[in-house]
Amino acid sequence: MSSWLETSIMARKGLAKAKPGAEYSLTEASQGRYHYVYGPYAAPVLTVDPGAVIACETHDAFEGRIRSETDIPSQILNFPYLNPQNGPIYVNGAEKGDCLAVYIKSIVPRGPQPVGTTCLIPEFGGLVGTGVTAMLNAPLPERVRKLEVTVEGGVKWNDRITLPYDPFIGTIGTSPEIEAITSLQPDYHGGNMDLPDVAPGAVIYLPVNAKGALLYLGDCHAVQGDGELCGVALEHPTVTTVQVDLIKGWTLAWPRLETKDFIMTIGSARPMEDAARIAYRELVRWMAAEYGFDPLDAYLLLTQCGKLRVGNMVDPKYTLGASVLKSIIQA
Amino acid sequence: MSSWLETSIMARKGLAKAKPGAEYSLTEASQGRYHYVYGPYAAPVLTVDPGAVIACETHDAFEGRIRSETDIPSQILNFPYLNPQNGPIYVNGAEKGDCLAVYIKSIVPRGPQPVGTTCLIPEFGGLVGTGVTAMLNAPLPERVRKLEVTVEGGVKWNDRITLPYDPFIGTIGTSPEIEAITSLQPDYHGGNMDLPDVAPGAVIYLPVNAKGALLYLGDCHAVQGDGELCGVALEHPTVTTVQVDLIKGWTLAWPRLETKDFIMTIGSARPMEDAARIAYRELVRWMAAEYGFDPLDAYLLLTQCGKLRVGNMVDPKYTLGASVLKSIIQA
Amino acid sequence: MSSWLETSIMARKGLAKAKPGAEYSLTEASQGRYHYVYGPYAAPVLTVDPGAVIACETHDAFEGRIRSETDIPSQILNFPYLNPQNGPIYVNGAEKGDCLAVYIKSIVPRGPQPVGTTCLIPEFGGLVGTGVTAMLNAPLPERVRKLEVTVEGGVKWNDRITLPYDPFIGTIGTSPEIEAITSLQPDYHGGNMDLPDVAPGAVIYLPVNAKGALLYLGDCHAVQGDGELCGVALEHPTVTTVQVDLIKGWTLAWPRLETKDFIMTIGSARPMEDAARIAYRELVRWMAAEYGFDPLDAYLLLTQCGKLRVGNMVDPKYTLGASVLKSIIQA
Amino acid sequence: MSSWLETSIMARKGLAKAKPGAEYSLTEASQGRYHYVYGPYAAPVLTVDPGAVIACETHDAFEGRIRSETDIPSQILNFPYLNPQNGPIYVNGAEKGDCLAVYIKSIVPRGPQPVGTTCLIPEFGGLVGTGVTAMLNAPLPERVRKLEVTVEGGVKWNDRITLPYDPFIGTIGTSPEIEAITSLQPDYHGGNMDLPDVAPGAVIYLPVNAKGALLYLGDCHAVQGDGELCGVALEHPTVTTVQVDLIKGWTLAWPRLETKDFIMTIGSARPMEDAARIAYRELVRWMAAEYGFDPLDAYLLLTQCGKLRVGNMVDPKYTLGASVLKSIIQA
Repeated sequence: MSSWLETSIMARKGLAKAKPGAEYSLTEASQGRYHYVYGPYAAPVLTVDPGAVIACETHDAFEGRIRSETDIPSQILNFPYLNPQNGPIYVNGAEKGDCLAVYIKSIVPRGPQPVGTTCLIPEFGGLVGTGVTAMLNAPLPERVRKLEVTVEGGVKWNDRITLPYDPFIGTIGTSPEIEAITSLQPDYHGGNMDLPDVAPGAVIYLPVNAKGALLYLGDCHAVQGDGELCGVALEHPTVTTVQVDLIKGWTLAWPRLETKDFIMTIGSARPMEDAARIAYRELVRWMAAEYGFDPLDAYLLLTQCGKLRVGNMVDPKYTLGASVLKSIIQA
Repeated sequence: MSSWLETSIMARKGLAKAKPGAEYSLTEASQGRYHYVYGPYAAPVLTVDPGAVIACETHDAFEGRIRSETDIPSQILNFPYLNPQNGPIYVNGAEKGDCLAVYIKSIVPRGPQPVGTTCLIPEFGGLVGTGVTAMLNAPLPERVRKLEVTVEGGVKWNDRITLPYDPFIGTIGTSPEIEAITSLQPDYHGGNMDLPDVAPGAVIYLPVNAKGALLYLGDCHAVQGDGELCGVALEHPTVTTVQVDLIKGWTLAWPRLETKDFIMTIGSARPMEDAARIAYRELVRWMAAEYGFDPLDAYLLLTQCGKLRVGNMVDPKYTLGASVLKSIIQA
Repeated sequence: MSSWLETSIMARKGLAKAKPGAEYSLTEASQGRYHYVYGPYAAPVLTVDPGAVIACETHDAFEGRIRSETDIPSQILNFPYLNPQNGPIYVNGAEKGDCLAVYIKSIVPRGPQPVGTTCLIPEFGGLVGTGVTAMLNAPLPERVRKLEVTVEGGVKWNDRITLPYDPFIGTIGTSPEIEAITSLQPDYHGGNMDLPDVAPGAVIYLPVNAKGALLYLGDCHAVQGDGELCGVALEHPTVTTVQVDLIKGWTLAWPRLETKDFIMTIGSARPMEDAARIAYRELVRWMAAEYGFDPLDAYLLLTQCGKLRVGNMVDPKYTLGASVLKSIIQA
Repeated sequence: MSSWLETSIMARKGLAKAKPGAEYSLTEASQGRYHYVYGPYAAPVLTVDPGAVIACETHDAFEGRIRSETDIPSQILNFPYLNPQNGPIYVNGAEKGDCLAVYIKSIVPRGPQPVGTTCLIPEFGGLVGTGVTAMLNAPLPERVRKLEVTVEGGVKWNDRITLPYDPFIGTIGTSPEIEAITSLQPDYHGGNMDLPDVAPGAVIYLPVNAKGALLYLGDCHAVQGDGELCGVALEHPTVTTVQVDLIKGWTLAWPRLETKDFIMTIGSARPMEDAARIAYRELVRWMAAEYGFDPLDAYLLLTQCGKLRVGNMVDPKYTLGASVLKSIIQA
């Protein structure tokens, strides 16, 4: 266990006290069919106890179908069968009103090079008309980039530019109670948040709405800027290893996240200011409930030291994380 | 058949040519459990051929649980089990890419008076902070109004004010292909649009995304203003009679509507301008595809004579209808 | 005086009791330079008493520079010198906190045919990327339509389509206290609202923020659909005749409007739902302050019978009007 | 000159090559009346050549009127006379189409302790209903915090919490051509951006729209979180020293910023995604125009490594900065 994790909320509140338990491997073969919705209607692929450590073979968001820079995404992609997810993983003991804690241990690329893919898809992205922000302008031309990605060498953009390998989980969440939400969308259950803080070393806390929590994850990114501007980060297949824990009776309205240095609340909505409002209100409420702040003092203090991170500005809902340093609120 | 219906798109394109076929009754008893999501995971309660006429006993949005003006909605309502829907009705022959046409024959109130309910629910409505537009302000007090509603006498607001009985279907749509969307939300499949034009005498055209179309409906309103301002129209249980038809190969991205006088396209999104953009772009495309207009001429012409109707400004997505008079485009 | 005007708020509260006073003519010659901002920094072109009737020679929004269908707007238009305004007209006795009532007596086209102009301007309009909703898509081609407009014959769109002549004032307002707001923008002072209800027969009530009120107006439209979709209605030069009155101590936060049948409040903001919220909240407050309603009852009642009209969805702020029938609230 | 400044755009393109010239002091006395609009209608308080170094005595946003924690802001503040600005400073040679470069040399607090002020103002802030996002909920109680602020000691929040002194200029910009824009609003001219990157060591590049540029500035913050959540940062009076330079013919649509490490573009709009779109589109265009990128490659690359900073989510327009590391684009 990394040293900060010993002092985490997961360690203090989790049934397994953040200690690793049984190890599982969710390979392509054991996963079988991947999923395109977050819902309670699919049979679990795995049933585990709190503490379980699970290594998941994730696909990229295109399930590996975009193979070369001459591919034409709109001819290959078959909506709504996009953004394939591993899971659902049933966590014993989890019930509505609980919290599922997921510590992200590691993410490593898998498969033959070039393992990374980004592209322009018609009517999708932050700087173009879309199906939602409907325009009469002609779409941009399609374009595919296939890039070599390694842990040590990073992301080779071209001869001059190399970006760091800075991987995170683009889509992760639990099942809603009765809805089956497309894996393209983030919401109160997590989902397609595309928030770079959901990275190795962090713990994400997810609301449990269905029996067994039903954890799904996928869509790992090798690197991504704030907002995931064109809608497609550096997508890549991975082995992603997570450790789950269960916090009974900790009822969250929205996902939360913890790192060594800060706590974060996550909101997803349109327009973007509503995502910011959700995230910041959750942070005010958290500071009031568990860190001894008067709510209005928390509001005033966050005005001076809160941080906002834009995850995506391209999905059906936009995702923002609001955070505050532990060194300030635990002072 | 009402005379205008004979000249409708439903009559021209529908397999049943808008002619009424077999009659069905979907009572509370035959419906059994009502549904709270629009999805392909529930078994059909009825299987019909195009032309079928179905009389549905709809519940009000609260399933009748708010019984008196002293009831406290937040103590009675059990999220997400809200806005119960009749269905799904399986329409033989319907496949993804087709269009389900639904002619609304009649809506009449049912049950003991006072049959109508409206109320203020905490953190819900157009002029208050909500779970999405998150505020720190204290919520408004709860308030319930129970009102007598009759076809002839209208809606008796108080001794001085009577509103007309002007009923429509608040929530109607088909099943998504793999999603199960809460019945509280409108989207490309229809759903909780709360658009007063979905009224007796109109035909709504819905995209088919799942085999059998899987029609759901419910949430009838006795009367409603533009925007459904506080979030709760005059809700009431009804017998709602619809006649379905099937248009093969007419592939719609969003719902459309037709009356004697106009054609309308319907968009649902946040922020509100995106709903307007969707609706108007669909109308431009429709005029170009089927009414002989150059798209940019349609754009210029709608600038001078298009109409916008705000259905709701309170649901998870806002709904707007854009329309143009038949007398203009069929000139 | 039209009969309904005798019972108007203008008649009840105005210093001149809605009775016509001295008559003035504000010709192109007497106007001299037109204005492109609403502000307190220009000298009045006219000083009048309440009751004054003023016939204004308005320019079209392009000051007549787009003369043929082969003109290219982007080469002719010289931002920010767009949307020329008559005025300012100084109204004796008007002070901050008062209300300027403007009854719109008539609008008639002036100048040689074709008198009407609409067009597509790059990066402007409701269904294209703009300077604010910034996109990378290529702009649409430019296009100009010059149309014959007469009071009796209407707007001749083409051989098949004629639209009614349904004129209104696109831009009207008072001066802010210290700001000079571009005439392209609507706001709390009125301005470029593009709301078709600001038409002959209506009274618009404007907040007074500067001494003398400093009334500006211009930008008359021969006809316009909801939202002014492409950004350019059927623009035309006119003689527009208004009658002003002054209501001392009636302090409005936003413009209001009255017709024979309804009262309306007007909000301008982005996103569009904020314009709707402003308008509806003002209407709730008005019903509470002057029509005997409890505010929450007004909120509930407007949910059932309020009307929303989208003026523009293209200007720097969008404009919506919320209205309720007098027959309901004066019951 | 700090070493990075020698390699700045200001040094390469500026008439004064980023070298300091004549020194000026703009004291409270020499300023005289402060300004509440950014416009061309006020006489310059200073006329300088490129290179001028100007030490400005800025007021806090309340002009010092909130003196104790028992003060009630709504009784003291006199809208629209808020956010007083120093200037306008006329820069010789500046014409429409040029760029004014402003290097921020230093900001130090001035005046008696407690020099810092933050507070809750009714109907203002990111987590409350406002005049624009109009709600019926009751406003929060008012609250004032007066805090000691020193360069060395930082901002003393309470006995347990001290925040760093991390000052920046909240409001800075040039005059529009004909508008007079309230100093409460950010826009294409700069203004009330509340973006913490406008800090000592950075250069802000501002579009010139009026002869002489007419630089205004004020509203310095001792520290502020992302979004300026409650609407009031840690406001304080300062001596703020800037060095101006003039870049002829560098025509910017929106403000830009440069530090040792990154270049940034700044957009202000509502809803928030539109501010993000403006900022990112400007960055794409800048990379294409001056850093050798194909525009679509820049779009794809920023998707992987662009950064977004939320300045304010409370002003009449929200402000976001989009940035990219020089080390990436100059690779």
